[in-house]
Amino acid sequence: MILTLKRGVSKSEIRRVEKKIKSFGFRAHISRGAKDTTIGVIGENAILLREFFESDPAVRSIAQISKPYKLASRQIQSKDSVINIDGVKIGGKNFVIIAGPCSVESRPQLLAIARKAKKHGAKILRGGAFKPRTSPYSFQGLGAEGLKYLLEAKKITGLKIVTEVMEISQIELVDKYADMFQIGARNMQNFNLLKEIGKSRKPVLLKRGMSATVTELLMAAEYIMSGGNKNVVLCERGIRTFSQETRFTLDISAVSVLKKETHLPVIVDPSHSTGNRDYVPSMAYAAVAAGADGIIVEIHTDPLNALSDAAQTIDIPTFSAMAKKIGEIAKIFGKKI
Amino acid sequence: MILTLKRGVSKSEIRRVEKKIKSFGFRAHISRGAKDTTIGVIGENAILLREFFESDPAVRSIAQISKPYKLASRQIQSKDSVINIDGVKIGGKNFVIIAGPCSVESRPQLLAIARKAKKHGAKILRGGAFKPRTSPYSFQGLGAEGLKYLLEAKKITGLKIVTEVMEISQIELVDKYADMFQIGARNMQNFNLLKEIGKSRKPVLLKRGMSATVTELLMAAEYIMSGGNKNVVLCERGIRTFSQETRFTLDISAVSVLKKETHLPVIVDPSHSTGNRDYVPSMAYAAVAAGADGIIVEIHTDPLNALSDAAQTIDIPTFSAMAKKIGEIAKIFGKKI
Amino acid sequence: MILTLKRGVSKSEIRRVEKKIKSFGFRAHISRGAKDTTIGVIGENAILLREFFESDPAVRSIAQISKPYKLASRQIQSKDSVINIDGVKIGGKNFVIIAGPCSVESRPQLLAIARKAKKHGAKILRGGAFKPRTSPYSFQGLGAEGLKYLLEAKKITGLKIVTEVMEISQIELVDKYADMFQIGARNMQNFNLLKEIGKSRKPVLLKRGMSATVTELLMAAEYIMSGGNKNVVLCERGIRTFSQETRFTLDISAVSVLKKETHLPVIVDPSHSTGNRDYVPSMAYAAVAAGADGIIVEIHTDPLNALSDAAQTIDIPTFSAMAKKIGEIAKIFGKKI
Amino acid sequence: MILTLKRGVSKSEIRRVEKKIKSFGFRAHISRGAKDTTIGVIGENAILLREFFESDPAVRSIAQISKPYKLASRQIQSKDSVINIDGVKIGGKNFVIIAGPCSVESRPQLLAIARKAKKHGAKILRGGAFKPRTSPYSFQGLGAEGLKYLLEAKKITGLKIVTEVMEISQIELVDKYADMFQIGARNMQNFNLLKEIGKSRKPVLLKRGMSATVTELLMAAEYIMSGGNKNVVLCERGIRTFSQETRFTLDISAVSVLKKETHLPVIVDPSHSTGNRDYVPSMAYAAVAAGADGIIVEIHTDPLNALSDAAQTIDIPTFSAMAKKIGEIAKIFGKKI
Repeated sequence: MILTLKRGVSKSEIRRVEKKIKSFGFRAHISRGAKDTTIGVIGENAILLREFFESDPAVRSIAQISKPYKLASRQIQSKDSVINIDGVKIGGKNFVIIAGPCSVESRPQLLAIARKAKKHGAKILRGGAFKPRTSPYSFQGLGAEGLKYLLEAKKITGLKIVTEVMEISQIELVDKYADMFQIGARNMQNFNLLKEIGKSRKPVLLKRGMSATVTELLMAAEYIMSGGNKNVVLCERGIRTFSQETRFTLDISAVSVLKKETHLPVIVDPSHSTGNRDYVPSMAYAAVAAGADGIIVEIHTDPLNALSDAAQTIDIPTFSAMAKKIGEIAKIFGKKI
Repeated sequence: MILTLKRGVSKSEIRRVEKKIKSFGFRAHISRGAKDTTIGVIGENAILLREFFESDPAVRSIAQISKPYKLASRQIQSKDSVINIDGVKIGGKNFVIIAGPCSVESRPQLLAIARKAKKHGAKILRGGAFKPRTSPYSFQGLGAEGLKYLLEAKKITGLKIVTEVMEISQIELVDKYADMFQIGARNMQNFNLLKEIGKSRKPVLLKRGMSATVTELLMAAEYIMSGGNKNVVLCERGIRTFSQETRFTLDISAVSVLKKETHLPVIVDPSHSTGNRDYVPSMAYAAVAAGADGIIVEIHTDPLNALSDAAQTIDIPTFSAMAKKIGEIAKIFGKKI
Repeated sequence: MILTLKRGVSKSEIRRVEKKIKSFGFRAHISRGAKDTTIGVIGENAILLREFFESDPAVRSIAQISKPYKLASRQIQSKDSVINIDGVKIGGKNFVIIAGPCSVESRPQLLAIARKAKKHGAKILRGGAFKPRTSPYSFQGLGAEGLKYLLEAKKITGLKIVTEVMEISQIELVDKYADMFQIGARNMQNFNLLKEIGKSRKPVLLKRGMSATVTELLMAAEYIMSGGNKNVVLCERGIRTFSQETRFTLDISAVSVLKKETHLPVIVDPSHSTGNRDYVPSMAYAAVAAGADGIIVEIHTDPLNALSDAAQTIDIPTFSAMAKKIGEIAKIFGKKI
Repeated sequence: MILTLKRGVSKSEIRRVEKKIKSFGFRAHISRGAKDTTIGVIGENAILLREFFESDPAVRSIAQISKPYKLASRQIQSKDSVINIDGVKIGGKNFVIIAGPCSVESRPQLLAIARKAKKHGAKILRGGAFKPRTSPYSFQGLGAEGLKYLLEAKKITGLKIVTEVMEISQIELVDKYADMFQIGARNMQNFNLLKEIGKSRKPVLLKRGMSATVTELLMAAEYIMSGGNKNVVLCERGIRTFSQETRFTLDISAVSVLKKETHLPVIVDPSHSTGNRDYVPSMAYAAVAAGADGIIVEIHTDPLNALSDAAQTIDIPTFSAMAKKIGEIAKIFGKKI
């Protein structure tokens, strides 16, 4: 339920309404726009409170939110959210390139890649320290050691750091090193993890589950946001379909749907969605043209010898040419890298 | 099986090899490039003939085609096919916009839309005279009358005509009016229809079935091509997946896969794939950026009152703005409308 | 729209109502039950006629059919349809086994298989004379010759014959030999073919398209039924999903959904759905248990050398054991083979 | 890699081989059959050790395991595993019915349902204390209090208890009350959770993720088993497909595929897969007939007022009739409830 307050209502009146909402056991999300102040009433069956606010002197109108997500919805905030990653902005007119290796493999590997990423236009460095692997017998990441290399790469290049947190117990450690948490596709509905991340204020890159609907992705964002962390960036990374010519099927129209439904920034992962380096640049271009706010891409100085995801990792010359073309397309849409 | 002939081989030698192939009950597809002449040997288990050609004096090398499609494959023809639709080219550096109403509804409706399509950059007019409808109780198209209006629209505007043929018995009639046959998604594996169309030399727009793999699409093209009609343009129009936020899921990566596997031009249908006019322009931009050779889009002077597919039809101002932006993106990729 | 007439209404009154319906350009489908006479009003937007019948002296109540299919719906006929295939019944308490080779390959092959099919419990013989093949280079069936062998097998064994018709031009020929037309999955939305088959009164086995919804399958049945041919048997044969461990995914719950929505009999194809002979018996048992009215299964005296679909064809001892167990399960559900 | 040892090899020799394997940093899984002793060598690229065992005096033969899962594979153990849930057996000839409410809602609700479950043939009681809910605003379960009621129900009825553990931090608590852990579909690839559960020896019910392949399900089982916990029961609970007539699509053929690939027991969830109580009994029957080792079903004394999953929960009379019929079908397959 969304309350739109009367224009010119005083701050103390707003506080009174907020208090009233809380007295019923609900939470209040206050949004002050240029003209209107709206309050999202958060909690199950909030609409039942309608009668208690219909004649409230501070309330101009009451709208029911039919969408199951509230805080992530364009209804509660019409203008684009711009998320700040330690100075790097995602959303609005800011198109961001996140690049790096699939896994942090070694200090020299990471530093070499980070320098190239920076040189050719990336603003944020990706790299897995803890790796979710389908097989228990595969390389599981360097762990804490990998995090240290990421921080060192940040100091040298100025790139911000995003890395995956797979488990509640890893949050504290990752928080010390990363500028942005990544929640992987397989954890998109790990609700306990989402709740814990919601207690932080650090930005979160939330990847869509491989069989999650757009609504479910927004509900997952809602778990984080309802805990107080509004700094969520969504990522389309391919869905499971009958088509097996690419590893997953990039659901490019999800970008359009998300841009319509939510104010949160949306980026695209052309690497995991295709699983094939030959298709990465064209899918990155498609993402920009479809209206995405950024891409996250796997690059490597020696892709064929990457310890994981070798098949989908592009080399530096390909990345350099791709980043240049992305800039040209972004410009047509009034965005800049 | 592909035979690459020795350089400088004489025409009579080529004819001899061709004759030898035919004597085994196979067909020969001869392709003369700047440097090499290759002959595709067409027929099941053609590779069994290998031994008969290994010591042939005109043959330099023999390659097995592992792909189940042959004539459509890049292996048999590496450079892009450019298909000529009565003077309008699709493929290579030529990006084409095909636009028009879903159904031909009336003479004034069609002429009004055709004039607008032409004015804003379309080269080919689409419009269904025979309509495949899921319900037997829905509007089934104007039939022959619709075809006459299409031809009239061509005479007035100069636009070329593409329209669907649903049934073998319609081919003769449609052939008199259209410049290009359309095979709809539901008929992609109507093999008898494909064979008949293969006997024509008129260009064909072949739409991907909603659950067809890229390989099956190329096999369907192979049915047409093996009959002698090489003028096939492929169309990605959305696949069936669990995602229901759009009517189908536009498989944008299929464009990349197809451009790698086949020399045939590939276009995208942003209207049927999304089923929602709000998403049509962004999906059209994504198509250009992904490397497509054109789009086919439903437009209407009064979309809300279209007799079919109203929800996905864009109006003229949207089309005009979209076509302009498509031109800008195409330019980045060295293509022109 | 469905009109339920007043009890005891006279035949001439029924005729009057029927005539009135037709005068509006709609068709009337009259269903006389033990207690009630109902009339289905068939045509687009039939509900618009509501006002003209609300005060009609013969009409007791009017119900809107919200389902897009009408004649196939349980609303228009609540009790199971029993379809008669030249004396063999499908539906109600009659469970039927249809068996035979994928393709008719030769006279001796077919006769040998037919004798075994008959011996172990099949009532209807399947066998393709015209084969829809993904590749233009694959065996396309024996055609008219195959039909003759089927008829000979019928004369020898007493089995009824079902065979696929792929094309309108084949209907006349197939009609001379077969007791039941089969419409294949790839032709489920070949609407012109459905309309032509609707003009016949010969039973039709309509296979679900590999990406068709249950509603679309019922709409395809509606095409046939609205032409006057009510003898439709539906067949679930697997759908396209991300799962590739079987060739298609048998949608066993579609049997339950169909049994609830339609009065038409529903059978299951465990051969094409799995594409793997190891899984055929267990999927056949699942079909019986789920409530299907029959199965259609590929059998062969020498499966490994079958010209098509070898991987999914079971041998005679497997068929014999399977048919016996199917009988035991059917008995639990009050059905008999 | 699997080593098959020479017949009559001594225990000390087996210990020597085991030690040798460990000296390379790999783990050894020893399986003593009636005739043969086999040792699975567990670890990435175990096949590289081949040369070190080829001439080992205790080794008769070496086989490579091509499947990415090892311990779960039929190759390493051909006969069915029978899992013991505090005295209740699943697998082999033992068909088990697990029943109970979706969520534990209150003490009287749970006890009433447990008594009915017991009376009509269930051996294990299900009931969620911690609930994974798509929306942060939905009922999230009673938590620890719910666990206490489950234990009380066990004491009164003798039913064993299975309940979901969503998070590593819940393991210790759940372990005190439950006889079997449940890993939900959304956590099937929560690898850290799987590893922790692998350290326990308590049986685990592992549900297939809604877009997981059969191979991925077996890899998830492998995570648990490679930690030492061999007591894994797999559960097919429906996959995401384009078909929306049921909530998910029950992949019944996965039962057949799993029974072929793994020795672990396989059960089916007809409640979550269909999301519709009308289809639960027929899908339960299909599961038995397809070869499943059990079902897990949601029942309630007052389904319409269940706090979660009301639409798919069956009432007690339906459960009673269903359990009886399940017994009849199971008997045909030589199994008993």
